[in-house]
Amino acid sequence: MNTLGRCLRLSTFGESHGVLIGGVLEGVPAGLKIDLDALQAEVNRRKSTNAYTTPRKEEDVVEVVSGVFEGVSTGAPIGLLIYNRNVKSKDYSNVKEAFRPGHADFTALAKYGVRDYRGGGRTSARESVARVAGGAIAKMLLKELGIEVFSGVFSVGGIEAQNIDFSHAKTSPIFSLDKDIEPTQQEAILKAKAEGDSVGGVVLVQASGAHLLGLGEPLYDKLDARLGGVFMGLNGVKGMFIGEPSVASLRGSAYNDPLSPTGFQSNHAGGVLGGIGSGADLVIWVHFKPTASIAKAQDTINTNNKPLKLELKGRHDPCIAIRGSVVCESLLALVVADFALLNMPTKLSSVRAFYRQR
Amino acid sequence: MNTLGRCLRLSTFGESHGVLIGGVLEGVPAGLKIDLDALQAEVNRRKSTNAYTTPRKEEDVVEVVSGVFEGVSTGAPIGLLIYNRNVKSKDYSNVKEAFRPGHADFTALAKYGVRDYRGGGRTSARESVARVAGGAIAKMLLKELGIEVFSGVFSVGGIEAQNIDFSHAKTSPIFSLDKDIEPTQQEAILKAKAEGDSVGGVVLVQASGAHLLGLGEPLYDKLDARLGGVFMGLNGVKGMFIGEPSVASLRGSAYNDPLSPTGFQSNHAGGVLGGIGSGADLVIWVHFKPTASIAKAQDTINTNNKPLKLELKGRHDPCIAIRGSVVCESLLALVVADFALLNMPTKLSSVRAFYRQR
Amino acid sequence: MNTLGRCLRLSTFGESHGVLIGGVLEGVPAGLKIDLDALQAEVNRRKSTNAYTTPRKEEDVVEVVSGVFEGVSTGAPIGLLIYNRNVKSKDYSNVKEAFRPGHADFTALAKYGVRDYRGGGRTSARESVARVAGGAIAKMLLKELGIEVFSGVFSVGGIEAQNIDFSHAKTSPIFSLDKDIEPTQQEAILKAKAEGDSVGGVVLVQASGAHLLGLGEPLYDKLDARLGGVFMGLNGVKGMFIGEPSVASLRGSAYNDPLSPTGFQSNHAGGVLGGIGSGADLVIWVHFKPTASIAKAQDTINTNNKPLKLELKGRHDPCIAIRGSVVCESLLALVVADFALLNMPTKLSSVRAFYRQR
Amino acid sequence: MNTLGRCLRLSTFGESHGVLIGGVLEGVPAGLKIDLDALQAEVNRRKSTNAYTTPRKEEDVVEVVSGVFEGVSTGAPIGLLIYNRNVKSKDYSNVKEAFRPGHADFTALAKYGVRDYRGGGRTSARESVARVAGGAIAKMLLKELGIEVFSGVFSVGGIEAQNIDFSHAKTSPIFSLDKDIEPTQQEAILKAKAEGDSVGGVVLVQASGAHLLGLGEPLYDKLDARLGGVFMGLNGVKGMFIGEPSVASLRGSAYNDPLSPTGFQSNHAGGVLGGIGSGADLVIWVHFKPTASIAKAQDTINTNNKPLKLELKGRHDPCIAIRGSVVCESLLALVVADFALLNMPTKLSSVRAFYRQR
Repeated sequence: MNTLGRCLRLSTFGESHGVLIGGVLEGVPAGLKIDLDALQAEVNRRKSTNAYTTPRKEEDVVEVVSGVFEGVSTGAPIGLLIYNRNVKSKDYSNVKEAFRPGHADFTALAKYGVRDYRGGGRTSARESVARVAGGAIAKMLLKELGIEVFSGVFSVGGIEAQNIDFSHAKTSPIFSLDKDIEPTQQEAILKAKAEGDSVGGVVLVQASGAHLLGLGEPLYDKLDARLGGVFMGLNGVKGMFIGEPSVASLRGSAYNDPLSPTGFQSNHAGGVLGGIGSGADLVIWVHFKPTASIAKAQDTINTNNKPLKLELKGRHDPCIAIRGSVVCESLLALVVADFALLNMPTKLSSVRAFYRQR
Repeated sequence: MNTLGRCLRLSTFGESHGVLIGGVLEGVPAGLKIDLDALQAEVNRRKSTNAYTTPRKEEDVVEVVSGVFEGVSTGAPIGLLIYNRNVKSKDYSNVKEAFRPGHADFTALAKYGVRDYRGGGRTSARESVARVAGGAIAKMLLKELGIEVFSGVFSVGGIEAQNIDFSHAKTSPIFSLDKDIEPTQQEAILKAKAEGDSVGGVVLVQASGAHLLGLGEPLYDKLDARLGGVFMGLNGVKGMFIGEPSVASLRGSAYNDPLSPTGFQSNHAGGVLGGIGSGADLVIWVHFKPTASIAKAQDTINTNNKPLKLELKGRHDPCIAIRGSVVCESLLALVVADFALLNMPTKLSSVRAFYRQR
Repeated sequence: MNTLGRCLRLSTFGESHGVLIGGVLEGVPAGLKIDLDALQAEVNRRKSTNAYTTPRKEEDVVEVVSGVFEGVSTGAPIGLLIYNRNVKSKDYSNVKEAFRPGHADFTALAKYGVRDYRGGGRTSARESVARVAGGAIAKMLLKELGIEVFSGVFSVGGIEAQNIDFSHAKTSPIFSLDKDIEPTQQEAILKAKAEGDSVGGVVLVQASGAHLLGLGEPLYDKLDARLGGVFMGLNGVKGMFIGEPSVASLRGSAYNDPLSPTGFQSNHAGGVLGGIGSGADLVIWVHFKPTASIAKAQDTINTNNKPLKLELKGRHDPCIAIRGSVVCESLLALVVADFALLNMPTKLSSVRAFYRQR
Repeated sequence: MNTLGRCLRLSTFGESHGVLIGGVLEGVPAGLKIDLDALQAEVNRRKSTNAYTTPRKEEDVVEVVSGVFEGVSTGAPIGLLIYNRNVKSKDYSNVKEAFRPGHADFTALAKYGVRDYRGGGRTSARESVARVAGGAIAKMLLKELGIEVFSGVFSVGGIEAQNIDFSHAKTSPIFSLDKDIEPTQQEAILKAKAEGDSVGGVVLVQASGAHLLGLGEPLYDKLDARLGGVFMGLNGVKGMFIGEPSVASLRGSAYNDPLSPTGFQSNHAGGVLGGIGSGADLVIWVHFKPTASIAKAQDTINTNNKPLKLELKGRHDPCIAIRGSVVCESLLALVVADFALLNMPTKLSSVRAFYRQR
């Protein structure tokens, strides 16, 4: 339920304004060097406090409380705790009884009958800090297999990159993929923010490495099925494509990727054929909605079904796609690493080789 | 692995050109009347042989071999067998050693080291007949809860419906949602077919019913996460949206659905808020790629990595989105029914009521 | 729910007096030669119709309907169907409304509200034919790893073997482990049968092979946890031990198995230490209750809660432990094979080696 | 892997001598009052430091870090942290390279290639503190359903209770079920301890309540299957019975429990028929081995396969069955509560009633 993956499994717990956010990562092969600095650096990348993101100042210190001994993974579950330091005991009176439009307030109360009204509780995107921590360890594993993951912001409020440059995205304050378009995108974000509004965006996430070939499990746990599950289930995501987004308008003769002795001649399929990694780059487009929390007055109701106008104050990202891109990258790392482990017992020849060499 | 769902679970087995396609549906509450005619009718709807689909003539007779006694479900797993009657012992020599572009041939051989080259084997969309059979039973369960599912073809090769009419889709030979646009869509299909080519398409799938409110499980099994998993994992699907497809270009003030005492005033969210059903219609757009099997000559390689030109003869749908829409509808029924059952122990008050009334 | 295992998974469906018993075995590594004769021979061994077992004459022909192509496993789920040929349309009137003592009649009706009264329906031990078919394939896989499984009947009605001889058990009509005690055990069975009664028994199941070392997954899926789940969950089993049965009366100094440079000096632990295979033989004692179906008159009630005397006619084993031993052996094979596959991604060095050699 | 249960799920992490032991309990119905004092009291009961148990002085303070808001469960996962306060930075040199007989040292190193030699690491029984914390919350849920769980020590080193008195067990320092036999049992423990040895024991665990009727899921997740999995998987457990332990020596006419209009006339089956709760008391006998850690010199080897004599100093229970009984009780509570929730969607009539009353 609160778990992602089958062999490499991330489970999380904790609420936005509770004591902490926790993650438990199981199935990390024993003997992996755990680089605590790299782990913290990933978490910091998600935090990225600047004019385009959130002014909520979290320390976000990751504590590794289990599963690592003398610097390496032991095969036991790795416990990751991120205490919430900056939880203001603020006044929740305006949201305690009102349903914020675009949030889970209404649906969560309907489902559970009780609601943690402090910042969305369990449904808050703050939980993603545990995904990023888990993803950081997944990346350490992928590095051993020569697989890399990348991400960046492709569009903001409809303003699209013209060139894709993942190395620029790494240093951009909005993780923009295009240095030339970036100023226009930044302007759009600041304008929306100034008007008490927010903007949506599209994130591009990729993985590359020869060992992507063959990843994906049969039939209801295909590579694309799992990617669909993790990305569509991420807070704020409402759409996605794997490979060429105009796919549904194309003809087969234009869309199919021809094979040649040196490999695929194009990659419209985005690295997945028949639910299995083709060895070509995994290419995923993730569509984020505009941040639900806006300062502008909105029509809503309270828990007594009375209408009201709600203006939200607080520390909200004007564009969740920005920090969302880091989370997407982490999720892709977790998924690919899980499939890399699941793939090992697929062929009898591999099983034989494994047991012969022990 | 080959299983969909957690409480209501569909597992399938069987290959396109093997003995049969089988499905096992577990978790159907005991006492549900199983209407065998309705079950067969759903399977027939997927078959729909006409000029726009496939000339492969399968009888597709569903046999219920377990789990039903004296007309009702017993709580035991329901076994569903569909024997393959029309498996021609044809000549596979041209595909046996060639990788068909756009198919799982290359990736499946890389993964498994062996390949059932007869019509794609396990990776063929023929497996979806078991999903439709399972979905038919899910619909019988949903009917008890007042939930309905619908589907139709929105666009074909980029030609989009201007009006959405699910009742028209039911009788249209291409399940088109728009009576006026339908002829143009049909023409596009026949033109591609005549040219030995294929077209992509977009399917719209919906569910409605008050009890959609509250469906969806926490955090890695949200309603949208699961929908992402089943639709992105369906053969030929490469993209999807839940709710408004232009979401990433919008501002929060335009996208958020305001609440009023009589309900949501719009449904850009497509019926899912925070991963939980909002009670508004579930609205899902599913982007299908053009059929991979085309008659036109394509560049590819054989299993010895030698280049060749491949022309596929055979009984292929020129547009997989058409019959795919029926499968999408079945999948949505399976997902929603599963969540409806999973939802029951969510609140202590419900648990108490259940055990008090026994 | 109806599935056993995590990587190698057996799911079953079908009822005792329904159309068929079905099994689906997933996760068999691709490229395993499937010996259909050996598969059928295992199923025949479970059938073993003689004076000490059941006169129900089932053909028990196993049909492999998927997952095997040109003699080897393909990685796709292997469908195994055993049609019920000898289902008499007999008169069920005396059991239709009466609850047979010792059976699931009362509890299943309470749980499901409907009941398949024909021979116990889904709860019948007839389902175990699918476990034996699946186990036969698991054995083929284990053979590749040098692991063997054995079973035999240790005691019948309290009459215990004095010597353990698995090779004798193979040819004994009651699978007895002791040639000298066997006649007394047979006598006890026939005497009980003649008196319209039944007897309990204890089965010994073992596995041996160097690669048992290291099998077992962490903490709630340990080797002994899984063995506990499959054996305690088998029809008619009410108790079990792993290793020395007098364990609870012993002192640590007598019970602990000392280690020496040549291995363990004893095997009180029965091959499991800390939930992980020690490399020593797996030794499991399984306690079966006497067959619930007896001809003697028994007090019971009907579905209207009226008392009655019930005398059961029919084709019942006087001692279910006999044929149960074959099922235990199959279950052990399935469990060990599953753990052998799950074990592969445990160490980083193995993961590295796997991906380096691809 | 590190998770127990399907609807009510407990996952744990943390090592014996690491930072903390953590538990995450998912699926607790929203709205359950969480009594923090009762939670701590259960954990204290497991700790029970006295002459017959361990001198390791742990504070064992349980912190609830998520899933509870304003005193009630919210439906979010409940995080339970127990920090290890009394972890001496002691000298591990004598165990660091030696394999302790009866422990997981040898097998865990073989499996993982690395070993946390501090007190057994993840394989230590210290992890059970998280099971007891989770079990305490399960008990709060069971109380709502009128189900109670009990436990006590039946025998120690072969010295068996003659009477079963669960109320005495509650106050006994060794949780003994028989006040009269208790002194002899205590003497046996102290004698073994004085001799640097340990003793095994048998624990009796029971549950009672009308709503046990019908609990248990089909076929590989029966009530007895799950009980087998959790008890056989508990540290130190090597055998178990459900109901009458002499079952395998009895005849059917003596073993079967006759039904009468007022219920079962005996309970040899221990409350489980056909894998489903019969409504009679659940009766489970759990056989614990003697504590593996003893002070007496034992033959073993070191990691270089050299023989040596090992004498273990440290804070060990002379009889793990004593504190083990508390853990058994917690596990039974967790299992029964999980099945109580899983049982809700079994019948269509219940599903209908649930959705009608919403």
